[in-house]
Amino acid sequence: MLPADPAVPDGWSTTGEMRVRLDTDPYLERYAARVRGMSASEIRALFAVASRPEVVSFAGGMPATSALDMEAVESVVARVIRDHGATALQYGGGQGRPELRALLTEVMHHEGVPCHADDLVITVGGQQALDLIARCFLDPGDIVLAEGPTYVGGIGAMTSNQAEVRHVPMDDDGMQVELLEEMLEQLAREGRRAKYVYTIPNHQNPAGVSMSVPRRHRLAELAELHDLMIVEDNPYGLLDFTGVTYPSIRQLVPKRVIYVGTVSKTFAPGVRTGWVAAPRPIRDKLILLREAADLCPSNLTQMIVESWLTTQPWREQIKRFTEVYREKAEIMLGSLASEMPDGVHWTVPGGAFYIWLTVPRGIDTSDLLAKAIAQRVAYVPGRGFYADGSGGDQARLCFSYPEVARIHEGVARLGELLHAELDLVRAVYGDDAPQFRPRHDGPAGGLGG
Amino acid sequence: MLPADPAVPDGWSTTGEMRVRLDTDPYLERYAARVRGMSASEIRALFAVASRPEVVSFAGGMPATSALDMEAVESVVARVIRDHGATALQYGGGQGRPELRALLTEVMHHEGVPCHADDLVITVGGQQALDLIARCFLDPGDIVLAEGPTYVGGIGAMTSNQAEVRHVPMDDDGMQVELLEEMLEQLAREGRRAKYVYTIPNHQNPAGVSMSVPRRHRLAELAELHDLMIVEDNPYGLLDFTGVTYPSIRQLVPKRVIYVGTVSKTFAPGVRTGWVAAPRPIRDKLILLREAADLCPSNLTQMIVESWLTTQPWREQIKRFTEVYREKAEIMLGSLASEMPDGVHWTVPGGAFYIWLTVPRGIDTSDLLAKAIAQRVAYVPGRGFYADGSGGDQARLCFSYPEVARIHEGVARLGELLHAELDLVRAVYGDDAPQFRPRHDGPAGGLGG
Repeated sequence: MLPADPAVPDGWSTTGEMRVRLDTDPYLERYAARVRGMSASEIRALFAVASRPEVVSFAGGMPATSALDMEAVESVVARVIRDHGATALQYGGGQGRPELRALLTEVMHHEGVPCHADDLVITVGGQQALDLIARCFLDPGDIVLAEGPTYVGGIGAMTSNQAEVRHVPMDDDGMQVELLEEMLEQLAREGRRAKYVYTIPNHQNPAGVSMSVPRRHRLAELAELHDLMIVEDNPYGLLDFTGVTYPSIRQLVPKRVIYVGTVSKTFAPGVRTGWVAAPRPIRDKLILLREAADLCPSNLTQMIVESWLTTQPWREQIKRFTEVYREKAEIMLGSLASEMPDGVHWTVPGGAFYIWLTVPRGIDTSDLLAKAIAQRVAYVPGRGFYADGSGGDQARLCFSYPEVARIHEGVARLGELLHAELDLVRAVYGDDAPQFRPRHDGPAGGLGG
Repeated sequence: MLPADPAVPDGWSTTGEMRVRLDTDPYLERYAARVRGMSASEIRALFAVASRPEVVSFAGGMPATSALDMEAVESVVARVIRDHGATALQYGGGQGRPELRALLTEVMHHEGVPCHADDLVITVGGQQALDLIARCFLDPGDIVLAEGPTYVGGIGAMTSNQAEVRHVPMDDDGMQVELLEEMLEQLAREGRRAKYVYTIPNHQNPAGVSMSVPRRHRLAELAELHDLMIVEDNPYGLLDFTGVTYPSIRQLVPKRVIYVGTVSKTFAPGVRTGWVAAPRPIRDKLILLREAADLCPSNLTQMIVESWLTTQPWREQIKRFTEVYREKAEIMLGSLASEMPDGVHWTVPGGAFYIWLTVPRGIDTSDLLAKAIAQRVAYVPGRGFYADGSGGDQARLCFSYPEVARIHEGVARLGELLHAELDLVRAVYGDDAPQFRPRHDGPAGGLGG
């Protein structure tokens, strides 16, 4: 039975004059298996502090919405209500509006990815696409192969559907596809198979690197060879600093790819509009799953995106975003070079939002976060980006959101902290510091992309 | 292996000069168990036709958004962007904005349901709340007890999570709680239990009736007696024609109730804003599930609802909606009385959107739908509202959306059709028409609430 005393908050009990925290949830035995292991990480509480203005936060993967033309957005939303109010405020179809789907194929074409509007399902950002795909394919215990590190929310979508995520290591050229091949062969020997490979080939979150062209071709070949599906998640492809163009995996093996896009980084996350492009039978399942999940996307936000894409210079806006991020990336790279102690390494992003940091043995980035926030700088510890608890010597720095003027300040604070920590590690262990141990911190949450 | 010929569409194959439709999905063996049985119903295709202007559609559960003050809405959305654009377009927290949660507790208070803003999680309409609750509690094979008939999307949320839905019959006083008691006792004898009871106590979708006060008290007692959780779904409570007030189940047994609300029927479905109010430990799980499902609600649509609730006379708007629906209900009831043949029965709604029709033995409402649409009138066949394939002699008529002037016309067309069908049934069977058989039509989809 449930606790009945209304004066005692849930999870607490009174014993005489003392209040003792009981870490038992009175509803625990009622939950489905998929949520029993889910709990908020302590890191979540730290991030609440990290949002204070005195903290330079490299934590949240948030776009610089301040670079948007707000007068243009205001006119766009007012016009949607004025011209199509009754439709915008009504229910819509589960697949999403045909008008928006057609326009999003133009966004894909702008990046060189061919697609037909009928292949698309509109979703609540890219995250819902990842969740619907996971629900479509994953039974408890199924195996998914994903880059290590990879997107926190991608891991969440797969593990909340009780899949086993195995990581394919990365280097500066993205997923090490030759190691993927070994893993596929090992699985075949075990008589098992991966339900799909999850990849973010362009300016990956969190590693900041892109998959090389030869590796893309090899991945496509492996898909044919091992009868494999690939989930290609591409939030960042259009935010490119270098002018290098990569073929999408979808172009190479269209029947094997479920492609995920979003306007969160090229327009605004606040409209919560993403999409999935899939072969038709899969598309049909995704529509049914979507209707069971939340009925239909918002007509209002869909029509705002339509109006943005038809009346505003959206290609120019993407260039403007890209210039902002390129400048911020250069400042952060310069600051890292001048402020970080020896033995700290980082990736050099060719686009988008992220730099991936690796610190010397003996420093645990999860443990360090509280100190960092006390020093008024925040990042995301590496463990959040692995399903297996590894990544304790890594961290994600996101440069997209902080003001240009504060990036050096934040990196300098982190550099100072790492110098001090390394001095301490050397004083205690000499050159023989212990390796960090795999450990689960739980989902970080509230971090945006 | 997948079909490789790009000239042949998915699911088709060429044999010599003939094209033969293969009803096999080449991805079938890859899907998770939860979607293998999911397929779009033929009814879905009929509803595409039903949206043509010459058809009077009583199908979709859509509010009369034309009764909204569009100039007020336009000023509300423009102001949100003008005053808070950067925030409105950015990511937000997974639980939803504290400002909106506080305002929604005022909406609950307006209906007499006490609540604290911390208990709320903002969702994508009520549907996402129902899905998150199902994901939180239901393992494959778990039992849920629900009114029969009940909301299509509620069934979808539960069955897409592989639960077994058993129906508690209804009468004009709502769920027959004495039959629920028998079912609970039967389950206990089998050594099983229901994970929860799903109920829509006010102006139920699709039956149009409300649960009587004594039954609410008895339901609360049974919850305590059988250690039961209750999901109380309340989209329609504020759209009341009669002035009768009912206690919410949440008031009676707060620790046992997960309460679902939405602004879809009191403001607009296009903003896709609902909420769930739950005991704290459950609320925490729902937030984690929500983040895995789609990261966070739209700040933009949340702030539009906030601005609506703080700057506009929302209580007056609800009265205006209610008057519109009351008038439409009266017209439909009058038309049913004058147009329906003997042996057709219907419920008398005390609020909201729906009238539930029962036709004489020998008529199957699923089979009749195509003829009805050919006669330019549409409804939802009863089977969509049962998980067990029953309801073949029933149908939902929704009066909320069609224009007042067309309601009689639509009912007259349906009456004419039923007269003709009954003549046919009597000619063939005399007074001994066969009973319809349980049959699954699959999810109807695209119907709004």
